Amino acid sequence: MAAKVLPRRSIWMFGLESEEPTEQQRRDFAKDFSERQGVEVDLPPIPRVEDLQLREPRIKPPQSLADFCRMDNYERALHAKGDRLEEIRGVFKNPPDIVAHPGTEQELQDVLEWCSDNEYAAIPYGGGSSSVEGVTPPEGYGGIVTIDMDQFDQVLEIDETSRAARIQAGIYGPALEDRLRPHGFTLRHFPQSFAGSTLGGWIATRSGGHYATNDTHIDDFVESVRMLTPVGWWESRRLPGSGAGPSPDRIALGSEGILGVITEAWMRIQVRPKFRATAGVTFPSWEAGYEATRQIVQTKLWPANLRLLDPDLARDGAGLDGTQALLIIGFESAELPQEWPMRQAVEIARGAGGQIEDDDIGFAGSGQPTGRGGAAGAWRDAFIPKGGGVAVGLGRVANTVESSITWDRWPEFDAQVRQALAKALKEVCGGGTINCRFTHVYTDGPAPYYTFAGRYKPGIGSEAQAAVKQAASEAIMKAGGTITHHHAVGRQHRPWYDEQRPEPFAIALRASKRALDPNWVLNPGVLIDP
Amino acid sequence: MAAKVLPRRSIWMFGLESEEPTEQQRRDFAKDFSERQGVEVDLPPIPRVEDLQLREPRIKPPQSLADFCRMDNYERALHAKGDRLEEIRGVFKNPPDIVAHPGTEQELQDVLEWCSDNEYAAIPYGGGSSSVEGVTPPEGYGGIVTIDMDQFDQVLEIDETSRAARIQAGIYGPALEDRLRPHGFTLRHFPQSFAGSTLGGWIATRSGGHYATNDTHIDDFVESVRMLTPVGWWESRRLPGSGAGPSPDRIALGSEGILGVITEAWMRIQVRPKFRATAGVTFPSWEAGYEATRQIVQTKLWPANLRLLDPDLARDGAGLDGTQALLIIGFESAELPQEWPMRQAVEIARGAGGQIEDDDIGFAGSGQPTGRGGAAGAWRDAFIPKGGGVAVGLGRVANTVESSITWDRWPEFDAQVRQALAKALKEVCGGGTINCRFTHVYTDGPAPYYTFAGRYKPGIGSEAQAAVKQAASEAIMKAGGTITHHHAVGRQHRPWYDEQRPEPFAIALRASKRALDPNWVLNPGVLIDP
Repeated sequence: MAAKVLPRRSIWMFGLESEEPTEQQRRDFAKDFSERQGVEVDLPPIPRVEDLQLREPRIKPPQSLADFCRMDNYERALHAKGDRLEEIRGVFKNPPDIVAHPGTEQELQDVLEWCSDNEYAAIPYGGGSSSVEGVTPPEGYGGIVTIDMDQFDQVLEIDETSRAARIQAGIYGPALEDRLRPHGFTLRHFPQSFAGSTLGGWIATRSGGHYATNDTHIDDFVESVRMLTPVGWWESRRLPGSGAGPSPDRIALGSEGILGVITEAWMRIQVRPKFRATAGVTFPSWEAGYEATRQIVQTKLWPANLRLLDPDLARDGAGLDGTQALLIIGFESAELPQEWPMRQAVEIARGAGGQIEDDDIGFAGSGQPTGRGGAAGAWRDAFIPKGGGVAVGLGRVANTVESSITWDRWPEFDAQVRQALAKALKEVCGGGTINCRFTHVYTDGPAPYYTFAGRYKPGIGSEAQAAVKQAASEAIMKAGGTITHHHAVGRQHRPWYDEQRPEPFAIALRASKRALDPNWVLNPGVLIDP
Repeated sequence: MAAKVLPRRSIWMFGLESEEPTEQQRRDFAKDFSERQGVEVDLPPIPRVEDLQLREPRIKPPQSLADFCRMDNYERALHAKGDRLEEIRGVFKNPPDIVAHPGTEQELQDVLEWCSDNEYAAIPYGGGSSSVEGVTPPEGYGGIVTIDMDQFDQVLEIDETSRAARIQAGIYGPALEDRLRPHGFTLRHFPQSFAGSTLGGWIATRSGGHYATNDTHIDDFVESVRMLTPVGWWESRRLPGSGAGPSPDRIALGSEGILGVITEAWMRIQVRPKFRATAGVTFPSWEAGYEATRQIVQTKLWPANLRLLDPDLARDGAGLDGTQALLIIGFESAELPQEWPMRQAVEIARGAGGQIEDDDIGFAGSGQPTGRGGAAGAWRDAFIPKGGGVAVGLGRVANTVESSITWDRWPEFDAQVRQALAKALKEVCGGGTINCRFTHVYTDGPAPYYTFAGRYKPGIGSEAQAAVKQAASEAIMKAGGTITHHHAVGRQHRPWYDEQRPEPFAIALRASKRALDPNWVLNPGVLIDP
């Protein structure tokens, strides 16, 4: 089967090669940054694929697999997913030996069987957007085969009556939406990695969409999953609901490639929203903002958006004064104008000290977005990531941690995480900035998302980054949160994940893994060890 | 620890001893039934505990467990959960040898360890309301210990801020609500077995509440679970949401006692509803009714109730003419009047051919129920089960099957299940009645619930009951549904459950069970075999 040619992705930044900045843009950025910070910066030049000196592949595919197995620099570097600070300098320490692009289920079976028989690490790969080294090849394996599912990129069936579609796992977010749009549908799942991640990756990592309440996790949209395990095909029935034993889909969800390779899923889809309402409500303090958020989510109006920004973020992202928090409330519907739920939510917000003029509540009824103006609009513009490539290689400590916590423990949790981050940033970088927003909100608690950046110090490395993240992770665990709400576990979150999960669950997961993957070849090192 | 004395439950019918009918009531019912049907019926007398001749207990608890282990007729008969037609005649073929009522976690550990060490079957037991032999002792064991959790009956903590409560697993529905009510809260989970089932049972069986959409399954209310397995305590963190690997709670949910004994859970609770709206909309046909139901659920207004009755049921339960379907729509909220969502839902229903006068839409704003009048009110009265005990022992083929199916396949599914039921009722009983309602509705499909009753034939036995249910189960599976939407698997649904689940999932579940319960003592025969 002839491979489909997809746009080439950047080996050193998130996005496509076509989206990479030029050398000139990087130099301009470095110069500007250097002047603003008053320090010398030295951004390395963009690495060229043809110049890379990668470790020679240690294994070779048999003839039967050769057609869809790649061993060139571009493929191996792209799938190496190691230390970005090293990779921008052309150092790819542990690239996969082979990158397989199976085009059919038979080809997938063949390559997985070959890996299992030979005990090569087999890494199921979607878009590679993991921020926790979820698809990074492990050390200590004599052969590593990354299985890139990008040839599985079709929407196979659309059931307009049930509002569901059978979709292949390797399809990227934008292509998926492009295929559903002509039929008037959307999956309505927009993680921040949307452009560079796939359906299979979302399912394997329990991805969170950018909607704030109710249907937003990929978990909620899964009707059934088809997954290849080393002992055979795992396929659940397509069902709206079932009480027949523990849900098989809920084991596939979050399995991070250790139990099988997801090939397709029936997904619940939605008619594209036509009616929208957006409001940006300001609050005199962070505390007033989160109290209002709690009240709104607990009334179960199920807003599409209920995103609270702390005062620092509201200042930087939406131009507020640095004391006020900003709550972005959004409703949307394919069928019904959203005035009523929005008015209710705004009244609750006002009752809790929120400020918004009636004229600043945006309503739209023909599919166009609202909220282009005012504080909400400013925030929206700042949220869409752009131009990230110019800063890669700078070596700045800048990262995010995310969690969820019940409301009763939230204020203490917030204080502890900020304190730990501030202390670590001080120690490592001499200081830095921390802000927080709620990405998702539940009746019983928020999912806070912290962004931090250390003061710039030339020559700082990945260990500094890791040290700050470690301090935050420890604080999160100590304060009772989850080590990850929607970034998954991967290799980076393992120590805290191991602490978080019930020990008998680990025993059960280990036994399941051993039974399904007897040679322990699937994404080894992730979630559980033998 | 001194055992708490709880009201005695009936050994032969669903409910308490105090709710049993008298001999006279049973004789009156038999006479009346006999006259209506034109057949002789012979209802056996109520069995007396002191007369029962049970198999002698084959094992004895050690002294250390004796305080909370019961071996008397009442306890062993109550927990036998065998063939009801035989039990009303005083025949309890395979009662447990011992019924343990541990009062502390230490006592629970001790009894489970004793069972595991000696390879006695250990059956975790909530209210015993299973309709699928979920807690019926298995054949082929030399010792059977039923572990009744009724001493674990406390609400331990209420977190009013997060709206969550830590609740012991053995608490029955009414007691649970009684404890939450003074604080203004409710779990808002009302399965039809509510009065005779427990929180632990709901979690173990993925119980469905009587609300129709969105938050109704016990799955949705679980924040964390504490469960004793033979290899140790399984306790998940209390979290609003998490993306850290497959959800441990989702393995406990539906585990039906084969992985551990649930002792407590943090559950999401809700402020008691104050505002309610109810409407009973009639449709010219079953087809028009389910098309309207689909449209309403797909607008995501999330009604508390969206219960569709087919024309036969609407006639028998609500006095309609036998051609019309009835859709009961309900909304409720603790905070907000429900006029707006109700008006939207009614407009959609009308657009799909539904009839209701504006005056017949009920609204209430101070906590009192609505819908006492009109078609919806008549149905509500008929729904609450009462006086079931008078007919026990009649030997009438009467049962229910439930499933869920996507909308695209629903009409064909409905036709096939009805056809199979009609054929089986004809063969077994010479005919009978079948009706259907939707108990739950999802955007991608309904959860239909079929009630059937065969024409009465004296002397008919449990095999006849089983034969009809088998025919329906086969039709459900063939037409693509789930073998159970909210009745669980137990021993009765096993053959179809085995067919339904993905084979690699069965392999994983078997391995998990073996790892957690090495001697395979927990509820053997349910869900999976060695």
